[in-house]
Amino acid sequence: MSIKMHGSEKALLLKEKFMAEIARHPAFKLSDIHDLSKDELRERTMEKFASMVYFVTNESLETFQLRMQLIGIADPSFWTRFGVAYGLFLGALRSGATPNQLSYWIDRGVLGLNGVIGCFAMTELAHGSNVAGLETTATFDRGSDEFIIHTPHLGATKWWIGGAASTATHAAVFAQMIVDGKKYGVKTFVTQLRDTKTFTLMPGVTIGDIGKKMGRDGIEDNGYIQFTYVRVPRAHMLMKHTQVSRDGVVSEPPLAQLTYGALLGGRTSMVTDSSNSAKKALTVAVRYAAVRRQFSSGKNELETQLLDYPIHQRRLMPLVAQAIAIGFTGLRLQTMYEDMTQALDTMEPSDPNLHDILDKLKETHATSAGLKAFCTWACLDTIDKCRQSCGGHGYSAYSNFPLMYADFAVQCTWEGDNTILSLQAGRSLVGAWGAAIKGKKLAPGVAYLNDSSIRTAKSNSSLDLSDIQRAWNCVAFNVIKKAAEEYVALLKSGKTKDEAMERCSQSRFIAAKLHTIGYIFRLFKEAVEEMEVNEESKMLRTVARLYGLWQIEEQQGYFLKYGYFDATQIDKVQENVDALCAEVRSVAIPLIDSFALSDHIINSPLGKWDGSVYESYFAQVQAANPLPKEHPYFNRLIKPLLERQNEDMEDPESAMGLDDELKEMEDDRKGE
Amino acid sequence: MSIKMHGSEKALLLKEKFMAEIARHPAFKLSDIHDLSKDELRERTMEKFASMVYFVTNESLETFQLRMQLIGIADPSFWTRFGVAYGLFLGALRSGATPNQLSYWIDRGVLGLNGVIGCFAMTELAHGSNVAGLETTATFDRGSDEFIIHTPHLGATKWWIGGAASTATHAAVFAQMIVDGKKYGVKTFVTQLRDTKTFTLMPGVTIGDIGKKMGRDGIEDNGYIQFTYVRVPRAHMLMKHTQVSRDGVVSEPPLAQLTYGALLGGRTSMVTDSSNSAKKALTVAVRYAAVRRQFSSGKNELETQLLDYPIHQRRLMPLVAQAIAIGFTGLRLQTMYEDMTQALDTMEPSDPNLHDILDKLKETHATSAGLKAFCTWACLDTIDKCRQSCGGHGYSAYSNFPLMYADFAVQCTWEGDNTILSLQAGRSLVGAWGAAIKGKKLAPGVAYLNDSSIRTAKSNSSLDLSDIQRAWNCVAFNVIKKAAEEYVALLKSGKTKDEAMERCSQSRFIAAKLHTIGYIFRLFKEAVEEMEVNEESKMLRTVARLYGLWQIEEQQGYFLKYGYFDATQIDKVQENVDALCAEVRSVAIPLIDSFALSDHIINSPLGKWDGSVYESYFAQVQAANPLPKEHPYFNRLIKPLLERQNEDMEDPESAMGLDDELKEMEDDRKGE
Repeated sequence: MSIKMHGSEKALLLKEKFMAEIARHPAFKLSDIHDLSKDELRERTMEKFASMVYFVTNESLETFQLRMQLIGIADPSFWTRFGVAYGLFLGALRSGATPNQLSYWIDRGVLGLNGVIGCFAMTELAHGSNVAGLETTATFDRGSDEFIIHTPHLGATKWWIGGAASTATHAAVFAQMIVDGKKYGVKTFVTQLRDTKTFTLMPGVTIGDIGKKMGRDGIEDNGYIQFTYVRVPRAHMLMKHTQVSRDGVVSEPPLAQLTYGALLGGRTSMVTDSSNSAKKALTVAVRYAAVRRQFSSGKNELETQLLDYPIHQRRLMPLVAQAIAIGFTGLRLQTMYEDMTQALDTMEPSDPNLHDILDKLKETHATSAGLKAFCTWACLDTIDKCRQSCGGHGYSAYSNFPLMYADFAVQCTWEGDNTILSLQAGRSLVGAWGAAIKGKKLAPGVAYLNDSSIRTAKSNSSLDLSDIQRAWNCVAFNVIKKAAEEYVALLKSGKTKDEAMERCSQSRFIAAKLHTIGYIFRLFKEAVEEMEVNEESKMLRTVARLYGLWQIEEQQGYFLKYGYFDATQIDKVQENVDALCAEVRSVAIPLIDSFALSDHIINSPLGKWDGSVYESYFAQVQAANPLPKEHPYFNRLIKPLLERQNEDMEDPESAMGLDDELKEMEDDRKGE
Repeated sequence: MSIKMHGSEKALLLKEKFMAEIARHPAFKLSDIHDLSKDELRERTMEKFASMVYFVTNESLETFQLRMQLIGIADPSFWTRFGVAYGLFLGALRSGATPNQLSYWIDRGVLGLNGVIGCFAMTELAHGSNVAGLETTATFDRGSDEFIIHTPHLGATKWWIGGAASTATHAAVFAQMIVDGKKYGVKTFVTQLRDTKTFTLMPGVTIGDIGKKMGRDGIEDNGYIQFTYVRVPRAHMLMKHTQVSRDGVVSEPPLAQLTYGALLGGRTSMVTDSSNSAKKALTVAVRYAAVRRQFSSGKNELETQLLDYPIHQRRLMPLVAQAIAIGFTGLRLQTMYEDMTQALDTMEPSDPNLHDILDKLKETHATSAGLKAFCTWACLDTIDKCRQSCGGHGYSAYSNFPLMYADFAVQCTWEGDNTILSLQAGRSLVGAWGAAIKGKKLAPGVAYLNDSSIRTAKSNSSLDLSDIQRAWNCVAFNVIKKAAEEYVALLKSGKTKDEAMERCSQSRFIAAKLHTIGYIFRLFKEAVEEMEVNEESKMLRTVARLYGLWQIEEQQGYFLKYGYFDATQIDKVQENVDALCAEVRSVAIPLIDSFALSDHIINSPLGKWDGSVYESYFAQVQAANPLPKEHPYFNRLIKPLLERQNEDMEDPESAMGLDDELKEMEDDRKGE
């Protein structure tokens, strides 16, 4: 089971190896993390950073990616901090630099951080999602063969720049390129921030600390940067796509580059991370529910395990099913993506299949926008529901839920705000719909749009995996149709394309949501159907049914509206979900164990593998809160309060004079 | 408008007065709160505490309650800290002490904290919701006329006790009373924890700090307490209900006391607090959306205000409507509750109306359980949606959303876990249903269950307030019927009452949810319909329609299932919600202003009243994060990294030897 969930035995073994390694590494101590100060957290992050450099330069990419995936679960803060230097800065070089530029920066030490520590300076105070609207300028100075990087006003201050506050020596700065007074749009300029020997700021560079955030305080290192006429050599502009010659001649690429790949990789990893983080929270909540007892049932002395209450099963089992479904989706997405990239790489431009593969890539790219949104939302929701399911103890920092929530919350915002990404997915579905009615054969992810008979399909009442799949295809078809027809009607009424898209945004959003849930279900179903039939795959089929039917229950309005199920069948769905929750509960503990997360990684006494919840919790609380030798403010604050005499006070009536005050305020107001 | 929202002009004026007072009080400084350490937060909390003692002893209860309501919005941490001493400890004395006992404790200084600072020691490590299952014991020792308070094992440790860690001198300890070997259930014993002169712990009392929590760190003062055979005089047992004589004769009350009142008061204040906290978050999000611009629409140079995007209106306007709806619900609940208590107080036991009033009180009590649950959930959800609607800046601590979320989250758990409370409400609805079919006339809150024609009602397509009200009555009727019928069927199949209730818990939950939303809508509708017709009340009618229709959209499955609306009408509902969002957006800024929350209270630069978002945000970030004089870890960590030579490393292949390791792990595993 565990091997299936991890994709391969090798992946599982590697995970166990990495878990054992970090459990023993002092920099990766987790149990004291809740009580560290901002400065202590930062310093420890930097220690981890240094400890990872060895692996990044020596391990295969595949192995290192698995390592980072694990780090992402154990320590999201650090994962981000590392991702900034490698994913973003190095990614910017890889996608934007010419081969010569790339080898220049690698020679200067970008890979091993020996010479250059990079950061990624895109976002500005007043501009996030709209990259084309960034306001930092890069003006070409022909005389010196340099660009002049400048922050024209406060709103153009680079903001949130991870690693800038106290670590980075260089930044990939995104700025509006201006040559001879003409604007050419946003390009990237590698700009030195600090002297690598003394670490003093370069002339014209102002850097400050962004300060406290909701979570991921290990990257407190987020900074802001203002440039005041900072000069960089022309050669430090990344010129793979747009080139500027010594004479200031600008050559722009004939076509916008194919950037699907880069975004798709990030989104796939966020889908996987959503599953992993949800599994971490669920490991704690399910184990706790197996230990915690509450209210005795009649004569039996022992109180009932929380997990045996139907409502508690309802709270957790669908979330377990969802986390597993998203996990398999992530695995398949990864494989699909690798297959497509490989096919593209080895294919000749004349290959007749090229177009199909590109279509598939484009479709997966659009779907991945929706997946990123709905999977991160689902995970955030799961973490908070797990916290609530542990009652008061879930509110203790040592349960680790507060940190999990705070760390994860940003996933709904960065790399594209979830709502905006959902609308992008919806826009693409509207487009796919248009292509389908023109008779075009669509890519697999949206192929159900080619089959218009699905629109009026009815359930055969079996509620089996095929029935559920047809149900999702039916409602997704209908809600996409609704959004597309609204869009067309708006166009006909004279709106521009952009206006029409804005006006139908609620319907686009719903289309993206139902398509995405159906897509997750389909990938999960395919994964379990490919397995050989045995106890494990039977259990996963049960889990898949629970996921599909629970989501139908959640979105029941659409199934009734489009007539796939009638009211009686919807009641049957609820009964089935009740029964499936009980069935999954009976294997909940082995299922949770197959997530293979060590006590060190989950870092919560409530989820201790051996069930020693209260003992571990008490020990951790004691260790984290040693008694002070002396009361910090008894003499200054408490003693005077306790020993105070009431007679010290003035007569309350005259002292308060409340009604006079209110009268005066009212008069003031009337006089205004 | 603002007066209407605050219930009276006096309430609004008082709020403005209190806001002005705390804005100038150094202990209530809020802007630096995100960067204070645990110890600093605690000390400041104690300063606030001392500053409030004057008001509690001198202000009228009504005025002081309004003062605390405001404090609850500005500083939830402190509000809790204060509530522990006054609401809980004093509340325990009021409800449990005889008149003589009460005056004894008041003479010892309970009110002014001059002599006694109390805390409320109910919850134990292993017991929260199930108070009857508490395991601390209080054994009567006839010889010395004392009770011996004892913690028998770790799970019985008093846990989460607010104020215990470093402030309280006494505790109201809930313990199983044992007299002559017989257990009499949980009673309350006022137990001294610390010497009031020296503050040293009393013999046998062990106290520790519970440490870091998700939020409300100003009450870090949560402690745990273990008692090792601690003796308290018999007279310190609260004896209003159960008495123990000098000879150990126990007299128990003939009937369980009527405790509706106490719980109802707390729940009403949590409904009001849900509205206020949601309004605080919405003030920030809506003002920010009016300032933030993103993407330009075509040729127009200026980018579009976020608030003008239909999807952004969809994100925020229904939440504005909901916060207002809950606010009016809170006001009416308060009035209803006061009227009922007054009626009960002045009524003779023989009064023929007594029974009606008691029924009404009972119904309101049950409904208030559902209201507490769904209003606190709605508010928590609102805070996070507001955060997300502000993009990346919502993740900054200085936006204040992270603290608002963390502080509010506990409201879903304490005073009854929301899921459990919902089920209690559902249980009472099942009971009401049973009474209705026996022909009993029900209290107003559930009177629609007396009208069985509502079950098959259909919409007249007007979608006006009456149509919406009938819609809610129709679906609530049907889902309560479903839960009740499931329950009856389970009883018939031979289940015990308790088992049957557990088995139908999902249906009970749904019944409580739909009843509660319909109830909120009804109270809001009644409030606006009582207002004289003018521009303001028209606007509030629009808000009420938005609330009712948006919630129908959210729960559309039930309206389709029970046939109140058909698919075409449901599409109309969506169109109406779109249009109403745009309409409310047009008055969004004045609506938000009428919430009357000062810049000091909202404590977020993103929501500055004058729109100076970026300037204020930048200034706050700078003030909170002064540049360090020296880099904290450049020499220790960064310099060695930057100046490292790659040649220092061993040959990567042999160093890694990864495949050998994995082989070994696999062999180990197979050998198991």
